[in-house]
Amino acid sequence: MQPTPFQQIVKHLTDDRTPRVWSLLVTVFGELAQDAGSRISGAVLRALSAQIGIKPEAMRVALHRLRKDGWIDSERTGRTSVYFLTPWGRAQSVAASPQIYAVDAPAAHAWLVMCNPAQPLQAEDITGVWLSSHVLLTAEVPLAPEVYSSALSPDTRLPVWMTDKVCDDATVAMTTMLAQALETLEDRLNATPDLDRLEIAALRVLLVHSWRRIVLKTPSLPDYVFPDDWRGALCRERVSALLTRYPKPQLDALEAAIAAPLTP
Amino acid sequence: MQPTPFQQIVKHLTDDRTPRVWSLLVTVFGELAQDAGSRISGAVLRALSAQIGIKPEAMRVALHRLRKDGWIDSERTGRTSVYFLTPWGRAQSVAASPQIYAVDAPAAHAWLVMCNPAQPLQAEDITGVWLSSHVLLTAEVPLAPEVYSSALSPDTRLPVWMTDKVCDDATVAMTTMLAQALETLEDRLNATPDLDRLEIAALRVLLVHSWRRIVLKTPSLPDYVFPDDWRGALCRERVSALLTRYPKPQLDALEAAIAAPLTP
Repeated sequence: MQPTPFQQIVKHLTDDRTPRVWSLLVTVFGELAQDAGSRISGAVLRALSAQIGIKPEAMRVALHRLRKDGWIDSERTGRTSVYFLTPWGRAQSVAASPQIYAVDAPAAHAWLVMCNPAQPLQAEDITGVWLSSHVLLTAEVPLAPEVYSSALSPDTRLPVWMTDKVCDDATVAMTTMLAQALETLEDRLNATPDLDRLEIAALRVLLVHSWRRIVLKTPSLPDYVFPDDWRGALCRERVSALLTRYPKPQLDALEAAIAAPLTP
Repeated sequence: MQPTPFQQIVKHLTDDRTPRVWSLLVTVFGELAQDAGSRISGAVLRALSAQIGIKPEAMRVALHRLRKDGWIDSERTGRTSVYFLTPWGRAQSVAASPQIYAVDAPAAHAWLVMCNPAQPLQAEDITGVWLSSHVLLTAEVPLAPEVYSSALSPDTRLPVWMTDKVCDDATVAMTTMLAQALETLEDRLNATPDLDRLEIAALRVLLVHSWRRIVLKTPSLPDYVFPDDWRGALCRERVSALLTRYPKPQLDALEAAIAAPLTP
């Protein structure tokens, strides 16, 4: 069977590899059902998963795992089930959203901070990337008089061993691949003008998920302290533009579309 | 016996404590007989030491020690002895002179340099004050691409633990005392207008020696990275001004003055 244009888009965006299903479902709940009281029907989850190329059995296993791990819970109403984030799962999702959906870089400025080696700060006192036991890169304005701080700028030359500690090679490589995929995605989308609600929801889930896998592994520091081949800024920009171009469908509308598939 | 005005000046400048004699004699040789072939008679050494309040026996012991340690050697000519730096002693003296006699701070700029903690620079690769195994303050422009460097300026706020590593409390306290002594010394000198050659030579030796004890203990870094109560810059300035006001007497002239004490 010839793949549909949208299936080709999915293949392109997932590099023809099915994403880890439980992790993708976390993105789905965060995208569509993060509000308290929000519930997704099994039918919508199945339809979305199918769009992304996930088999029903794999989805059932993933839902089981998420429930066991305390991320979600479910309820049966008559012949159908609805799924929803637990309070703990919702808290995780809410906490990660600002980083995932941010339009701008997580920080505009960074400092190199050196603490007294004889009295190093604790990791809980300040967030950032520790370069050694008493030196870190941070986006928090360091006010303590007992630390030395040096403001970094896009012109500051940082040695490679330092930027390597900000982001590992594998994650940097992910940004290269995603940036390339997003670049050609636009042409494909222009050639596929009429995405239905479900396809738009699936597209958004894939975009958010691809970027989430990168951004949640990286520190909240400005792009200029990242390795030279970091393309995170470009990924963030392109994902943001596409999420704006394809606004989020309301969950109610998706449920209605699934319930009455012949009335798009 | 009432002390002479110059003896009062000496007491003031030495804080009424006799300096360590062998160390003071190193200053004397550096000041008066650093040139190759330059020799000082025992008579001039005795006369200078007497001016500074050093007893002849203490001077003989110190000369013996300096000879044993390889700093100086001596020769008898008839009834008198002459003393001179060995090649090694002269090399030490020549090496220290630029720092001791410098009119300006040893450096105008400083950098904080951080090396890769996994591959720290060796102490012989770069000079400066090590703040930890891989971070140092240096006046050398750091060019290596594998180090991070941050230019420091007089406006850079350095924490106390950092400036404390540049100069210890005892040495900082010495600058406070010397700066105070030098401040009132000027009034005393104005009240004692007619110093003879030998007194001028003794005054210069005391000034150079007092500053040498401080400066040779401190790193070649700009004054602004020193602790807040460091008065080294003031000491350097006042010592320089006095050395300019009292030019160095020629050794020949001193020898002649000693040989014919009644013809000043």
